[in-house]
Amino acid sequence: MNGSTTRRTRQQCIDDVVKGNHILVRRGVLDSYGHISVRSPDDPGRFFLARAMAPATVEAGDIVELDLDGNPVHPESRKLYLERFIHGEIYRARPDVQAVVHSHSPTVIPFGISKVPMRPVCQLCGFIGQGVPLFEIRDAIGDGSDLLIRDGALGKSLAQSLGDKAVCLQRGHGAVTVGGTVAQVVGRSVYLELNARLQMQAITISGGDHDITYLSEAEIETIGAKLGDFERAWEAWCLEEDELA
Amino acid sequence: MNGSTTRRTRQQCIDDVVKGNHILVRRGVLDSYGHISVRSPDDPGRFFLARAMAPATVEAGDIVELDLDGNPVHPESRKLYLERFIHGEIYRARPDVQAVVHSHSPTVIPFGISKVPMRPVCQLCGFIGQGVPLFEIRDAIGDGSDLLIRDGALGKSLAQSLGDKAVCLQRGHGAVTVGGTVAQVVGRSVYLELNARLQMQAITISGGDHDITYLSEAEIETIGAKLGDFERAWEAWCLEEDELA
Amino acid sequence: MNGSTTRRTRQQCIDDVVKGNHILVRRGVLDSYGHISVRSPDDPGRFFLARAMAPATVEAGDIVELDLDGNPVHPESRKLYLERFIHGEIYRARPDVQAVVHSHSPTVIPFGISKVPMRPVCQLCGFIGQGVPLFEIRDAIGDGSDLLIRDGALGKSLAQSLGDKAVCLQRGHGAVTVGGTVAQVVGRSVYLELNARLQMQAITISGGDHDITYLSEAEIETIGAKLGDFERAWEAWCLEEDELA
Amino acid sequence: MNGSTTRRTRQQCIDDVVKGNHILVRRGVLDSYGHISVRSPDDPGRFFLARAMAPATVEAGDIVELDLDGNPVHPESRKLYLERFIHGEIYRARPDVQAVVHSHSPTVIPFGISKVPMRPVCQLCGFIGQGVPLFEIRDAIGDGSDLLIRDGALGKSLAQSLGDKAVCLQRGHGAVTVGGTVAQVVGRSVYLELNARLQMQAITISGGDHDITYLSEAEIETIGAKLGDFERAWEAWCLEEDELA
Repeated sequence: MNGSTTRRTRQQCIDDVVKGNHILVRRGVLDSYGHISVRSPDDPGRFFLARAMAPATVEAGDIVELDLDGNPVHPESRKLYLERFIHGEIYRARPDVQAVVHSHSPTVIPFGISKVPMRPVCQLCGFIGQGVPLFEIRDAIGDGSDLLIRDGALGKSLAQSLGDKAVCLQRGHGAVTVGGTVAQVVGRSVYLELNARLQMQAITISGGDHDITYLSEAEIETIGAKLGDFERAWEAWCLEEDELA
Repeated sequence: MNGSTTRRTRQQCIDDVVKGNHILVRRGVLDSYGHISVRSPDDPGRFFLARAMAPATVEAGDIVELDLDGNPVHPESRKLYLERFIHGEIYRARPDVQAVVHSHSPTVIPFGISKVPMRPVCQLCGFIGQGVPLFEIRDAIGDGSDLLIRDGALGKSLAQSLGDKAVCLQRGHGAVTVGGTVAQVVGRSVYLELNARLQMQAITISGGDHDITYLSEAEIETIGAKLGDFERAWEAWCLEEDELA
Repeated sequence: MNGSTTRRTRQQCIDDVVKGNHILVRRGVLDSYGHISVRSPDDPGRFFLARAMAPATVEAGDIVELDLDGNPVHPESRKLYLERFIHGEIYRARPDVQAVVHSHSPTVIPFGISKVPMRPVCQLCGFIGQGVPLFEIRDAIGDGSDLLIRDGALGKSLAQSLGDKAVCLQRGHGAVTVGGTVAQVVGRSVYLELNARLQMQAITISGGDHDITYLSEAEIETIGAKLGDFERAWEAWCLEEDELA
Repeated sequence: MNGSTTRRTRQQCIDDVVKGNHILVRRGVLDSYGHISVRSPDDPGRFFLARAMAPATVEAGDIVELDLDGNPVHPESRKLYLERFIHGEIYRARPDVQAVVHSHSPTVIPFGISKVPMRPVCQLCGFIGQGVPLFEIRDAIGDGSDLLIRDGALGKSLAQSLGDKAVCLQRGHGAVTVGGTVAQVVGRSVYLELNARLQMQAITISGGDHDITYLSEAEIETIGAKLGDFERAWEAWCLEEDELA
């Protein structure tokens, strides 16, 4: 029961991504329009993603195998997520990434439209200390888009904004989180939402984004080298889903 | 399983409006005093609305068919919503509207009593970018009312404030949301509440309603032309209600 | 199924107060230390209150009949609420009151310790417009108390602060709400908590307690004369408790 | 059904700590990474703590008996909490303490990174009035740690910061709460989170940490001498867990 994909079978990866969908809905990170994918353990040029549907009810039979251009590997008549290019282009740009979440994580959206940078408030949110770049779609294709990542070119732009970080905010839209396992990307997505809430509260208490002690650069580096697989949380969340199923 | 009313049968419309009641209660948009209606697919001069009761427990047998003056089409001994004129007058003024919600959506009420205009924080809330007019009942009948839409004249005033928009705030009372389908009006009502929360959070983070990047006019226009039927969310919410029933 | 006590039997009153306990816990108004009572329909000098216990698990057998001095009418070996004098002294001072809630309603407490007066944000909270006095126990017995209403003298002081209003805040402690029925006092308690939240949000949006349009004096008066029995909400909440029991 | 450990058997203590884990998860105080322990009733130099796992699913068989150095008393192959030194060193320094919680209590974290001291907003939170010291790990071992209490030396530093108080904040990490019983430490942990929320709300309403009437020194002293065992809440929470199990 861990989310590691490197040693997991194809079926385990599919099960992981199904569980990830349900956990992220229950934890308030995914609404009806976000998605989570995992790279295929058999072919780094492929990944698993649900067909176009709300994540709450995704089951194994809903998972589709796609190539990095977002084309289904097997003949497919079902509707696919318009924004599957987010996933393909991040997998292409980031060989270290094994799982991707695109969310409308509610408390994260306000940070994406404000000028206050998101910074890590606690040790479990240390991954945020790598920096949280912002993808401003107006910089990529000008004003007047519908903000969706509708093609590979936009997916490449988003992957470029993400760079080598764990998180990228999408202005007026949501966020992308990446990880080395499904457990890690789910954990990071949950704690990203939490960090947003706690940082907002620290700002409320302090009367602004000052006199707040965020993690230091040295602490962020130490934490990044040692911690953050979120396996313990993942295991508990999976058990919770099994019980509630 | 979609909320379109134009091609739906009378019975499907009634089922939609029952589901809509339950979904909006579970999502925190309706308390015990709001209501949702759908226009009759057989006669644009009629609509379906529950008898006077709390929305949480509405069933098909509780739905009453009313004309645009708020009179029951069939003999009716049960108590009707005092504010049914909200629905009738909006259907009269807006042929494009097929479904109406009147709510006391909690986070929306504070916007209705403050001077800060509600503006769209993200792509799913693009419909808010049409503008969010405020109905100030003091402008209609002077100070000293109980704020309720007790007759057709007040219903007409409210419909006039709404104009051609998707949403109208009611000062010191709540809001009205309209849509082309039950799915759309339910989705808009849920995301209106969300937008209120996220805009308030952006204001908290930013120390005021400045330095916030709302959707631009061009983005709002593009989104409005392409997106926003909320069918995917509606489908998931209906499944959730079925499971919990 | 209504909360009126004037025409209700003794057993119905006891059932009402049991339901009221459960509803107020589920709605987040009562924690493990608050209480709700109802005046006896047979004798205005007596009231029904649970023995000292957490409200979540109160059943009919836990209800004790007390006189206005807080003494049990029948021999009683079980522990009683220390603060039962709140109820007795309010019933003594206010013949119109048939039901009393003492809560630690969370969002109400911050108003009790701040200098910003609570004012009604919407029509359902009109009862707040009567004014919300503050009971400062230091004014009654000086600094250094444990803030509890430990005897009849303190109960009388609190009843005096309440005066003819529907609500009285207790600084650093909670609030007292009164009503003409159990339905009304439960509804007022739930909407008092809501008003606190919404007023706080309006302050957040507006950057302070200004530029906010509260209900006017004339609106408050009109609403007070016509509305506010909360029977529809009470009925729905009772059904919810029955289903979840 | 009370949380007193002084007269409780070894098995009752283990049951208490299992229940405490579940209650604190349900109340939002513990995430997947916090822990709660109880001192052995048979030997003050030993305590009971779960093996390294998420608290939501702890059962009696998961509880391990440790000495104050954090070594298991019986041969143990299962993984232990890295931060068990928090518990051992506090039990060593504080003979009066019978139970310890280490949490990432969400609303408490923002206070630990801001300059605004936590102060008691209400009578149930009186224990906070003893003062809430802050453990700044940079003062103990300099910048660049991962903020975890990885050994006995750090545990001693933390216990020193705690001193004779009920609570100690850990900057960028969480908090430690102590009590004379499991009931008390669980109650204090729940009401610590609540106090953080209510104080933040009072600051929001008041536009800063001024014009707020916290409990006075005299009130804090009186409350501390009389109140605060949280037995009534503990009993209700245990019943809730039994029903939901």
